[in-house]
Amino acid sequence: MYPISHVSDNKKQKQSKRRKKMNTAYQILEQRFNEKNTLEHIIALIDLDGQLNAPAAAANGRGEQKTLLELKIHAILTSPDWDEIFDKLESAADLDVWQTANVRKAKEEVAEASVLPAELVEQLAKARNDSVAVWFNARKENDFDSFRPHLERLVDLQRQAAVLKNPQNPYDAMLDSYESGMTQDFINPLFDDLKSFLPNFIDDIRSRAPRQTAEYENTLSVDEQIAFCKELMNRMGFDFGRGRMDVSSTAFCTTLGKDDIRIVSHFSRQNPMEGIAAVMHETGHALYEMHLPYAYMNQPVGQQRGMAMHESQSLLMEIGVLHSTGYLNWLAKRLGEKPETMRAKVQSVQPSLIRIYADEVTYPLHIVLRYELEKAMIAGDLQVKDLPAAWNDKMNSYLGVVPESNAKGCLQDIHWADGNFGYFPDYTLGAVAAAQFLRAAENAVPDIPERLGQGDFAPLNKWLTDNIRTQASLRPFNDAVLFATRQRLTTESFKELLKSRYLP
Amino acid sequence: MYPISHVSDNKKQKQSKRRKKMNTAYQILEQRFNEKNTLEHIIALIDLDGQLNAPAAAANGRGEQKTLLELKIHAILTSPDWDEIFDKLESAADLDVWQTANVRKAKEEVAEASVLPAELVEQLAKARNDSVAVWFNARKENDFDSFRPHLERLVDLQRQAAVLKNPQNPYDAMLDSYESGMTQDFINPLFDDLKSFLPNFIDDIRSRAPRQTAEYENTLSVDEQIAFCKELMNRMGFDFGRGRMDVSSTAFCTTLGKDDIRIVSHFSRQNPMEGIAAVMHETGHALYEMHLPYAYMNQPVGQQRGMAMHESQSLLMEIGVLHSTGYLNWLAKRLGEKPETMRAKVQSVQPSLIRIYADEVTYPLHIVLRYELEKAMIAGDLQVKDLPAAWNDKMNSYLGVVPESNAKGCLQDIHWADGNFGYFPDYTLGAVAAAQFLRAAENAVPDIPERLGQGDFAPLNKWLTDNIRTQASLRPFNDAVLFATRQRLTTESFKELLKSRYLP
Repeated sequence: MYPISHVSDNKKQKQSKRRKKMNTAYQILEQRFNEKNTLEHIIALIDLDGQLNAPAAAANGRGEQKTLLELKIHAILTSPDWDEIFDKLESAADLDVWQTANVRKAKEEVAEASVLPAELVEQLAKARNDSVAVWFNARKENDFDSFRPHLERLVDLQRQAAVLKNPQNPYDAMLDSYESGMTQDFINPLFDDLKSFLPNFIDDIRSRAPRQTAEYENTLSVDEQIAFCKELMNRMGFDFGRGRMDVSSTAFCTTLGKDDIRIVSHFSRQNPMEGIAAVMHETGHALYEMHLPYAYMNQPVGQQRGMAMHESQSLLMEIGVLHSTGYLNWLAKRLGEKPETMRAKVQSVQPSLIRIYADEVTYPLHIVLRYELEKAMIAGDLQVKDLPAAWNDKMNSYLGVVPESNAKGCLQDIHWADGNFGYFPDYTLGAVAAAQFLRAAENAVPDIPERLGQGDFAPLNKWLTDNIRTQASLRPFNDAVLFATRQRLTTESFKELLKSRYLP
Repeated sequence: MYPISHVSDNKKQKQSKRRKKMNTAYQILEQRFNEKNTLEHIIALIDLDGQLNAPAAAANGRGEQKTLLELKIHAILTSPDWDEIFDKLESAADLDVWQTANVRKAKEEVAEASVLPAELVEQLAKARNDSVAVWFNARKENDFDSFRPHLERLVDLQRQAAVLKNPQNPYDAMLDSYESGMTQDFINPLFDDLKSFLPNFIDDIRSRAPRQTAEYENTLSVDEQIAFCKELMNRMGFDFGRGRMDVSSTAFCTTLGKDDIRIVSHFSRQNPMEGIAAVMHETGHALYEMHLPYAYMNQPVGQQRGMAMHESQSLLMEIGVLHSTGYLNWLAKRLGEKPETMRAKVQSVQPSLIRIYADEVTYPLHIVLRYELEKAMIAGDLQVKDLPAAWNDKMNSYLGVVPESNAKGCLQDIHWADGNFGYFPDYTLGAVAAAQFLRAAENAVPDIPERLGQGDFAPLNKWLTDNIRTQASLRPFNDAVLFATRQRLTTESFKELLKSRYLP
């Protein structure tokens, strides 16, 4: 429904090519980042194949392959002549606004990589690969002890890397690596606000009469669900010529190239909304990738802004659209279900143990918990051995539930197992931004809700493409939010959305 | 049934590691070839994903990824200090027989790559990628003209490369790149012998009363065929912990790592023997890869001997075992079919147009045709524009059939479209070697035929593992045949096999 406009992009590319001839230093930069991104796409393919297809014994070989490519990326970013290249570019007068932003982003990436010795990069790649393999089993077997030394090593190695990047504030370096420029100073007031707002809000919702839940009228086989979800993806604007959807026990979106964006989803025989929600979430990610500016898509400036922005794009589709009453009504009609049944399933609020199945109201408290625990681990204030107890305490304090096993507690997510500290906050920053984006879009294009209520994404897609997707990494995060919504990020829209939905 | 013995291999690896410490030059060589093979495995994954999964628009990006990795491989092989390293290794006294052979093979690979400029490597990678994409369509549309300029360019580029490798005899350089040491002088007498033997033999078979053909008694869905074929793979010794089988419209085997060997097969609803034959053929390839010496598997000496040897391993399973009366009887019993029906399907001789569906008797003539045509194209004696007519003439002369379209003629195979000149002869060299190997195995272990007649591959597998698979590239091709069979390669066993099967 929304084919990428290759024509205008090709024109841009040609203009850009002409300009580049004036500046050899820029050409070198462009060529190197093209190579870096190509290598990253290959790593993404190795990961995807590992998740979907590879035989069990292949894990070690896959780790060696990824380590090799990561070292090659590190070698590109730590080439000894970068200072010279950036010096030349500083005095270059012929760069346009995209190229100037590209040089700035490139400089950030080079600076971040150049503080890391290759040995540490290699140790980290190996440690992450080993850790993920152990974690899968540890979660299955509810065996925290087998995973503990791996988590300790990752905390140690990632802290070493973060200290090299930002000696004053290592955790900020971690935040920065997922959404560049993100800091605790920015996050704390937003999260404090949610931490004071949500518990009372949840109590208020739960003190009201619960929504009537009922079973679905129709059953759909998994194959029928997949076919239906592919139709939804088409309606949302997913281009199957440039992507595909696979089925696994987990859900994610990954980019294997400019024209190769894959989503993976899981489906439940009992609950079709699980697959629909996962597909809409991942399609939100995929649409962002598919509409990045084509000519810059292998350059730093042409990459997605960061993971807070990326999650805003998936959550806008999942929470903003799927959970909205208008779209749910349309969906109910298409599926031959009662709208009240669908709403009760999607809009029920219930403190629970597992983040990925949490409702949109309690979800941010799962994130606050992880944010606080990982900060404490990186600061050395919390030892890995004390993580399970600390986890359970916070679950009890924020959500009033305590997991009966570590498998359903601190072992539930892959993030720490893969050494990804500093990622979790982006989910809630994304949810908060998604609400603000949706309000801005509806202010600018008032018929968006009505059209979504007809299953029509055209006006919403156009606003997102113009104001967010094609802007890529042209601006810092705060400026990107300002560009799209005319205001800085606050929790106002998010709280308004929840209030209008749950306490109207 | 035949798990790889990791224990003894690990021991070997440890001994080898101790030895390596004595010799830094050897360690460098080992590390570089480990990297080269890791990059080759990654290329194989990109290719596999391209065949099985990737969306249509991803072809260009995939080409860029492969070109980048091929240039990295080329850079490893053309490192300026190889002479120095080989000089040091020449005087090294502490290398064992495997390490000595490894240095010799490494030197060959370095010599072959060092004559090629990086520009030519890049042009070739791009030309091959473009050509394959055009060929797929050209075959579908029976449109030789759209493919012609691509084939012309590939003939030109591959000739340039071959002339750099072997100015006196460029086509020998091409043969060498698939089975090192292979030459026209070696192939010509074998092929001349087949060319004089086969036409009369085919006439003799066809002058007899044809075997009674009948339809299969039972039908199997494709899912049932797949399940049955996985059982066959298990019986053959395929280790699903280190490999898997996927389904596509074509069949091949590819190695993505020491512990990651994949086969792809196609299945026909109408004819289950098509899938069974493809699976047994590809499993023959896979078993060779799975039993290569583990400690050397990323080193030149630990690689498969070459494509003639590789095809001998697949054809030994397909022609040697599957087409044998004893195994066919066992298979018929398992499938609830009449043995005569199965034999009539597999052992019918009928000149036909498509190589991959040709019977074992007429197949070598398809190869002789391709061998002669590609030699003529490389020599410049045959212009690409004249290929369709030359193809049809030879089909008429060798097999008495003429394709009604180029799609069923010179466009049928991917090999030339992918620039692979010099590969085809290895199929028939492989068939000839397979017959000689099978005879040697049965001489050494007389109960092999009886055990295969019970669906039991154990004694055959042991002989193949000991005499061929674990020998990897320790010896030149002729010596490898001599090691396994105590005689040089001749057509005798192959002709005897056919005679005993068709004119008993």
